[in-house]
Amino acid sequence: MADTGMLLNPAGQYASGRHAQRVLEDAREQVAELLGADRAEVIFTASGTESDNLAVQGLAYGAKKSRGPAARRIHAATTEHPAIVETVDWLCSDLMGGGAPQFDHSEMPVDEKGRVRVSELPELEASVDAVMTCMWANNETGNLQPVADLAGRAAAAGVPFHVDAVQAVGHLPVDFHALGSSTLAASAHKFGGPKSMGILLARRDAVLVSPLRGGGQERGVRSGTANPQGAAGTAAALAAAVSEMEEERRRLSVFRKKVLSVVGAIPQSQIYTDPSGGALPGHVHVAFPGAEGDSLIMLLDVAGVDASTGSACSAGVNRASHVLTGMGVPVEVARGALRLTFGTATTADDVDRLCSLLPGVVDQARAAGMAS
Amino acid sequence: MADTGMLLNPAGQYASGRHAQRVLEDAREQVAELLGADRAEVIFTASGTESDNLAVQGLAYGAKKSRGPAARRIHAATTEHPAIVETVDWLCSDLMGGGAPQFDHSEMPVDEKGRVRVSELPELEASVDAVMTCMWANNETGNLQPVADLAGRAAAAGVPFHVDAVQAVGHLPVDFHALGSSTLAASAHKFGGPKSMGILLARRDAVLVSPLRGGGQERGVRSGTANPQGAAGTAAALAAAVSEMEEERRRLSVFRKKVLSVVGAIPQSQIYTDPSGGALPGHVHVAFPGAEGDSLIMLLDVAGVDASTGSACSAGVNRASHVLTGMGVPVEVARGALRLTFGTATTADDVDRLCSLLPGVVDQARAAGMAS
Repeated sequence: MADTGMLLNPAGQYASGRHAQRVLEDAREQVAELLGADRAEVIFTASGTESDNLAVQGLAYGAKKSRGPAARRIHAATTEHPAIVETVDWLCSDLMGGGAPQFDHSEMPVDEKGRVRVSELPELEASVDAVMTCMWANNETGNLQPVADLAGRAAAAGVPFHVDAVQAVGHLPVDFHALGSSTLAASAHKFGGPKSMGILLARRDAVLVSPLRGGGQERGVRSGTANPQGAAGTAAALAAAVSEMEEERRRLSVFRKKVLSVVGAIPQSQIYTDPSGGALPGHVHVAFPGAEGDSLIMLLDVAGVDASTGSACSAGVNRASHVLTGMGVPVEVARGALRLTFGTATTADDVDRLCSLLPGVVDQARAAGMAS
Repeated sequence: MADTGMLLNPAGQYASGRHAQRVLEDAREQVAELLGADRAEVIFTASGTESDNLAVQGLAYGAKKSRGPAARRIHAATTEHPAIVETVDWLCSDLMGGGAPQFDHSEMPVDEKGRVRVSELPELEASVDAVMTCMWANNETGNLQPVADLAGRAAAAGVPFHVDAVQAVGHLPVDFHALGSSTLAASAHKFGGPKSMGILLARRDAVLVSPLRGGGQERGVRSGTANPQGAAGTAAALAAAVSEMEEERRRLSVFRKKVLSVVGAIPQSQIYTDPSGGALPGHVHVAFPGAEGDSLIMLLDVAGVDASTGSACSAGVNRASHVLTGMGVPVEVARGALRLTFGTATTADDVDRLCSLLPGVVDQARAAGMAS
């Protein structure tokens, strides 16, 4: 007769359940329109990581089901987010204890900015290639990948292609149908939406065998009670992000240009973010050889500036960024890397303050490094 | 420098990240205290379904890793929630295309109230038994399972045991250490907390190899950006539910007694909820042979009463409850089943209204069934 939540279970058969269903489906339709997808292609999940897992594992298991055991090659670069790197490792391990792994990892070659070298890829074949995966924009450097080119190649070969667009959605124009990938992952909190909400776009003809089992909600791909409130918040945040995207891109590009010019003037600085080849406007990833990343962060933190050495997902562990080492950056240089990201809450004053602090902070960190 | 959310990523290395981390850890400690667990045993997930998947798959893969390929038997009743039934089916299928399944399903026998017949279970052996799983309380009938007895047997044999406590947590006293299971799943929205938040309790010595891969948050079991707000809401809702539990149990038991007496007076009615053997106070699951469940729901819905034929997770599909058929109820009787649940929002007036409506509604549904 009654649940305790404000909106009831949308799978319920009663009147209040139907209201929740409407809220959920309206959100689905809005997200579909904003991302160039059909509403039936929108699957709500609980995080970008979950979307990536369901897509890569789901397409890989789907390849076995639809194309047989020989479909075992998975193409992914080492510079991908841990949600992809670890998922591919998992699939390529002997996870079931059957005696041998059922998938092989084919490493996609990248250049010194972390971009996939498309011309060096092996030829794709549906009989052997289970799935290819690539991020739209790197979460550390902000650099964009040639996802449209890759999508075209994958589609021509009949190989499923997943795009991890967690950094891109809400910040760059995304048109799922125009892109032509099989699946695409996004995370709501990355564009101002609620935590614990992710999006997975999946073409109708994508064969997805989900590793998450249960009541079969969301096309059988993402079982679990739906969250109409979260879906509505996700749709509203995405609508706001898309409507402000161009203005915000211009604003953040000015910040980035300013910071990059200050960084460029610091001796021996290395700049990994590459606006000339396309990059997220709010990302600046740099290194200052001789300065430990942890020292830089601590000194900036004391001055009230939030920064990070790499992916927040693996932060807290003092190790070199796998993205930078994957790009060929030596470990000792990568350990001095600093990731600065600007968002809607960042003001021009924040950036001016960072710019005036940075040269001195690098000097201090380098002095600390020499003294230790 | 800035995220767009109100609380930042707790894995971030900056000051605001540390604040989010405190909120998350305070919530973890509160949940641990309320459920008789250590804080290190509390893993936040995005749903009860996810908690069940991570536990059963994680313990199953962990069994292969720690005890070798011979550990392949999975004990589960057919009356479990789809989050368990489908997960066990998945593990016992040839999911990796390696040529043969790596796990076998051993069906746990149940009696006519859906309770596991403990005395009829095969002897457990760590060398062959990968994992046993059982729900604390059935989501349809509300009947309680002998989980403490099962936990003792599993522990004595060194076999991991998962308890799906999604229906129990917040409604019955739960003490994880006293129970002695390896893992335990809960869902926040079931006790008035936010949607998209689940809890998984996991003993430190449980070998969990999670199928969800990524940044390694939550002890490596549940990768994905943490949700401190959601965790705080979960902890607060659980604290409220626990403090009101005894009073609420008394209040709902009165409702249940009243409804069961009205149901008992309707000719040929079948009552599946069994308070004498222990049952959730807010559940009444009954059937009226000759009346279709869908007709009953429609007639009650028109009168403003929300009901359901079975699990909301599979509702919308007109089929007999797998819980009832698993208990031995004939399909034609199970199709007439009606699940009524009372919660914090249910008033005495609601119950009186239901009681006065029910006999007439059953008559109408039976007349409709005879006419068609």
